[in-house]
Amino acid sequence: MSIRIGIMGYGNLGRGVECAVKHNPDMEVTAVFTRRDPQSLHPLTSTAAVYPAAEAAQHKDEVDVLILCGGSATDLPEQTPEYVKYFNVVDSFDTHKRIPEHFANVNKAAEETSHIGIISVGWDPGMFSLNRMYANAILPGGHDYTFWGKGVSQGHSDAIRRIDGVKDAKQYTIPVPEALEAVRSGKNPDLTTREKHTRECFVVCEEGADQARIEQEIKTMKNYFDEYDTTVHFISQEELDRDHSGIPHGGFVIRTGSTGWEDENSHVIEYSLKLDSNPEFTSSVICAYARAAWKMAQEGQKGCRTVFDVPPAYLSALSGEELRRTLL
Amino acid sequence: MSIRIGIMGYGNLGRGVECAVKHNPDMEVTAVFTRRDPQSLHPLTSTAAVYPAAEAAQHKDEVDVLILCGGSATDLPEQTPEYVKYFNVVDSFDTHKRIPEHFANVNKAAEETSHIGIISVGWDPGMFSLNRMYANAILPGGHDYTFWGKGVSQGHSDAIRRIDGVKDAKQYTIPVPEALEAVRSGKNPDLTTREKHTRECFVVCEEGADQARIEQEIKTMKNYFDEYDTTVHFISQEELDRDHSGIPHGGFVIRTGSTGWEDENSHVIEYSLKLDSNPEFTSSVICAYARAAWKMAQEGQKGCRTVFDVPPAYLSALSGEELRRTLL
Repeated sequence: MSIRIGIMGYGNLGRGVECAVKHNPDMEVTAVFTRRDPQSLHPLTSTAAVYPAAEAAQHKDEVDVLILCGGSATDLPEQTPEYVKYFNVVDSFDTHKRIPEHFANVNKAAEETSHIGIISVGWDPGMFSLNRMYANAILPGGHDYTFWGKGVSQGHSDAIRRIDGVKDAKQYTIPVPEALEAVRSGKNPDLTTREKHTRECFVVCEEGADQARIEQEIKTMKNYFDEYDTTVHFISQEELDRDHSGIPHGGFVIRTGSTGWEDENSHVIEYSLKLDSNPEFTSSVICAYARAAWKMAQEGQKGCRTVFDVPPAYLSALSGEELRRTLL
Repeated sequence: MSIRIGIMGYGNLGRGVECAVKHNPDMEVTAVFTRRDPQSLHPLTSTAAVYPAAEAAQHKDEVDVLILCGGSATDLPEQTPEYVKYFNVVDSFDTHKRIPEHFANVNKAAEETSHIGIISVGWDPGMFSLNRMYANAILPGGHDYTFWGKGVSQGHSDAIRRIDGVKDAKQYTIPVPEALEAVRSGKNPDLTTREKHTRECFVVCEEGADQARIEQEIKTMKNYFDEYDTTVHFISQEELDRDHSGIPHGGFVIRTGSTGWEDENSHVIEYSLKLDSNPEFTSSVICAYARAAWKMAQEGQKGCRTVFDVPPAYLSALSGEELRRTLL
């Protein structure tokens, strides 16, 4: 019997979940919940039912794990504590500094209703967090570095699109190669924001817009660009659509540290991702944790969890015996 | 109160454990057990008692977790199932194909006596296994690649030293850069043993030994060298001591796989280690798992575990709250 997956919110992430489930024979998408008109929505999975989001609770018996595909700004802080009352849930809440508060809210509702809620799943937070944590436990007293990219930042692309005269835009975050090399060499450099990443923008203007002003507005935009070296390219909509339609991303988590009685030996632990599709990879991580949520619920566990709490084997469709024989 | 660590066997790994414990303020080494004359052994930790290995069981109340630092060929298959009767234990058993049998033996003794035994801890098996497993769960249907090095293989160095006329030797395993690049590019190449790694040997001969014969014997040695492109350098003992006294190692675990409804997007997950000291890094991983063993034992858990079974947070000295706030 497969694990029945429900999808709340059918955007890039929701479609990514469908694709990930297709790669996992022990899972199936049984329901998609949407705030749009259900009639207008045609999931890739022909057997999945489409329901209004408002009626989700009525369908709790059709779903083993509900995957919440909303945004972290306003959707998930409301949705995760609400839906965990009816379902085991997994979300990808990624506002790092609000995680403790989100955890507390989800945990309370999940404990009261005996469900499992795994929050902040994906790659950062998610796999990057896990690698930071493992590396910290192995090399206490070391130095942590996280680099993002090369990849598309949706937030920065959106910020450019809000500028007057801009029709469309895509922004890439790029790690500075020299900074990466200095970190890998074990030099433990202190790096400023500017020294770690550069930003590259591809911008389509409205006809007759003032490119010089737009470039200036981008480069001086507070919190988004002012602390970075930013390059701006003006291109046509055709070029943007042809060359920049993907959503690649990735990055590097590096920890350096020393061992030995007098700290005489150095070590470098590095984890990196190179992703063609940020939402599809995130969804693939989420699906593995949906399996874990289901196993934990089957055991009678309840409450909120993060990637730090889940035994790795729970993510796998293989048995403990198979894992030890083939992957240990 | 700190976690009291016992060390069974005081070689490179045992000394590495002492150094790792020094970096973890919540742990202390209270006892070292040895098959040598205890009087002849002087641990780096001045407060640690030294006892004969044969009397270990008598000192079970002085130790919370016993770390077994023997070899996988003959020591650990005997020692781990035996000592887990008296202690919570961690070992670094690394004969991959005998892991299922070792697990069963340790599990039986651990369950009968209500202890925790975590086996096969280190980096391969260990951190590399974990990364293979996580990546497999995230990208089912992908391809796995593990490369080792650049690093010293003790087994291959020993094999060279057994050749007639050889006084001393050190062997390095080196990943082939072109193979690594082909894998990272997502080409999913089928690589032969010869295409993945080369072997480089630094050999000190007895006076008057036949170098041509020795080189030939090395390069044709079954299972060790015959399937590799091997380079042999003859050097003096002084050069070997000066330039090749370290025990560096490391390697790469890479998984490539695709996502999307039609597998249209590719992804590369890479984990790598660059280690100045193989035994000290292994010991550092072991110490983090000793903390986990202690937490599991405190909860009343019993039986055999591997890195696949241990929730990541158990490795850390930080609380769940601190972990979520600082590393998620």
